[in-house]
Amino acid sequence: MTRSQLIAQIRQKRSFLCVGLDTDVQLLPECVKHLPNPVLAFNKQIIDATHDLCVAYKPNTAFYESRGVAGWQDLVQTWQSIPGDCLSIADAKRGDIGNTSTRYAQAFFEEKSSGMSFDAITVAPYMGSDSVKPFLAFNDKWTIVLALTSNEGSADFQHLGSENSHLFEQVIQKVQTWASPEQVMFVVGATRGEAFKTIRKLAPQHFLLVPGVGAQGGSLADVCRFGITSDCGLLVNASRSIIYASNGTDFAERARDEAMRMQQEMAIELDKINF
Amino acid sequence: MTRSQLIAQIRQKRSFLCVGLDTDVQLLPECVKHLPNPVLAFNKQIIDATHDLCVAYKPNTAFYESRGVAGWQDLVQTWQSIPGDCLSIADAKRGDIGNTSTRYAQAFFEEKSSGMSFDAITVAPYMGSDSVKPFLAFNDKWTIVLALTSNEGSADFQHLGSENSHLFEQVIQKVQTWASPEQVMFVVGATRGEAFKTIRKLAPQHFLLVPGVGAQGGSLADVCRFGITSDCGLLVNASRSIIYASNGTDFAERARDEAMRMQQEMAIELDKINF
Repeated sequence: MTRSQLIAQIRQKRSFLCVGLDTDVQLLPECVKHLPNPVLAFNKQIIDATHDLCVAYKPNTAFYESRGVAGWQDLVQTWQSIPGDCLSIADAKRGDIGNTSTRYAQAFFEEKSSGMSFDAITVAPYMGSDSVKPFLAFNDKWTIVLALTSNEGSADFQHLGSENSHLFEQVIQKVQTWASPEQVMFVVGATRGEAFKTIRKLAPQHFLLVPGVGAQGGSLADVCRFGITSDCGLLVNASRSIIYASNGTDFAERARDEAMRMQQEMAIELDKINF
Repeated sequence: MTRSQLIAQIRQKRSFLCVGLDTDVQLLPECVKHLPNPVLAFNKQIIDATHDLCVAYKPNTAFYESRGVAGWQDLVQTWQSIPGDCLSIADAKRGDIGNTSTRYAQAFFEEKSSGMSFDAITVAPYMGSDSVKPFLAFNDKWTIVLALTSNEGSADFQHLGSENSHLFEQVIQKVQTWASPEQVMFVVGATRGEAFKTIRKLAPQHFLLVPGVGAQGGSLADVCRFGITSDCGLLVNASRSIIYASNGTDFAERARDEAMRMQQEMAIELDKINF
């Protein structure tokens, strides 16, 4: 999915919501647990209930890998279940030396190799250029580089360096020399509020993938105040607050309610900028 | 495998060699390609031919993930094939927010979850403490944190910061406040020669996992000159130079020759320190 196609979807759905499919087998509703393939059944019902309200789905690979081969099968089938009008993001946070990163790119982008062809993957920048560039070699795919994450530990290393030259700022600056806003997004946690101001100075056009609204406590209004652009430029992710909105038989309905609540807030933000 | 068990293996085998099982299906010898499960058959023959000469095996997960479910099955069976007297390292370079890193730890450490229980995993530090600590919660397992890697791109971010306070140095210092040398190792590329001096000042006791000897051009003598400790403190990895020493029917024999050549160099280095 290209940048202009993504922007068109946001415009049509009045939403920049990404639903995180961090499906934890232990947290599944009882009514799903007895099914032959509970994780896939759950994901499909969540997708059915929310796909008109969001523009992206983001399975985090850890929740699938933790169940070995069976989990990896669920990941492939979950990718197959994501509708074509939604951006599919493998939240994998991969990164290795060049020839190895190429293998990771094949794992998530090349259906003939791995059975999956996500539109986008998240990538960790620690190992530098040759760990990121192999992902950029795939046409019409997105590389989403970790910049400033939403977790407590983000302060340990991402803020190293001097004023205006913290690690996360250097990541944003350097990655822009490798690829355009048509190919690259950055991860910026919603819990970082005012940091969006700084980041928008460095990356005025890039889409930002924003986790941390919902269960992690970030505010959508703050993210939009400092982060929204004339092209929207935001994908705001919610996982647990949507997919575990209920653990009863009404889990899909309640997930839809929560996705709709967020979509409606997003529509208001888009109206504000006459998008 | 505990630190003292690892040191005992090094002493007994006169070797601190780690064989990287970065098994690329396109580079397999013709004689293996026709077998029902070529990657696994190849790995087993490599292991059979080298296990008395090395103390660790390190499959890089990218080479398995790139083939989807079939590759993941091969990874599980490769783990099962690593003998108990060798440290098994999942070179996965994972890292995510706390609850998600726990899932990655289960993927590689918890057999009842995933079918695999490696002795060690490589971890990327970019996301900080809560991305690393979940791995440390597993008893008798090793967390091997990326510090200064062997690739060209390592200069992009790992050297940021001021003299004596580069990112890789801060990673080494901070991670030591979270865990002891019984639980943590660091990745330091062999191509970094003199950097081992600096690193040994910061981490005099930790084992270092050293890629980059062999195909990437690092020198074993340089690594030992600056990096070896009274407990050895090194695991030196070679992948391509061993596993692709020949692509004929003699691939396992030639792999053994190359592993033996390295083991003999290592024995000389161990003699030098009266280990």
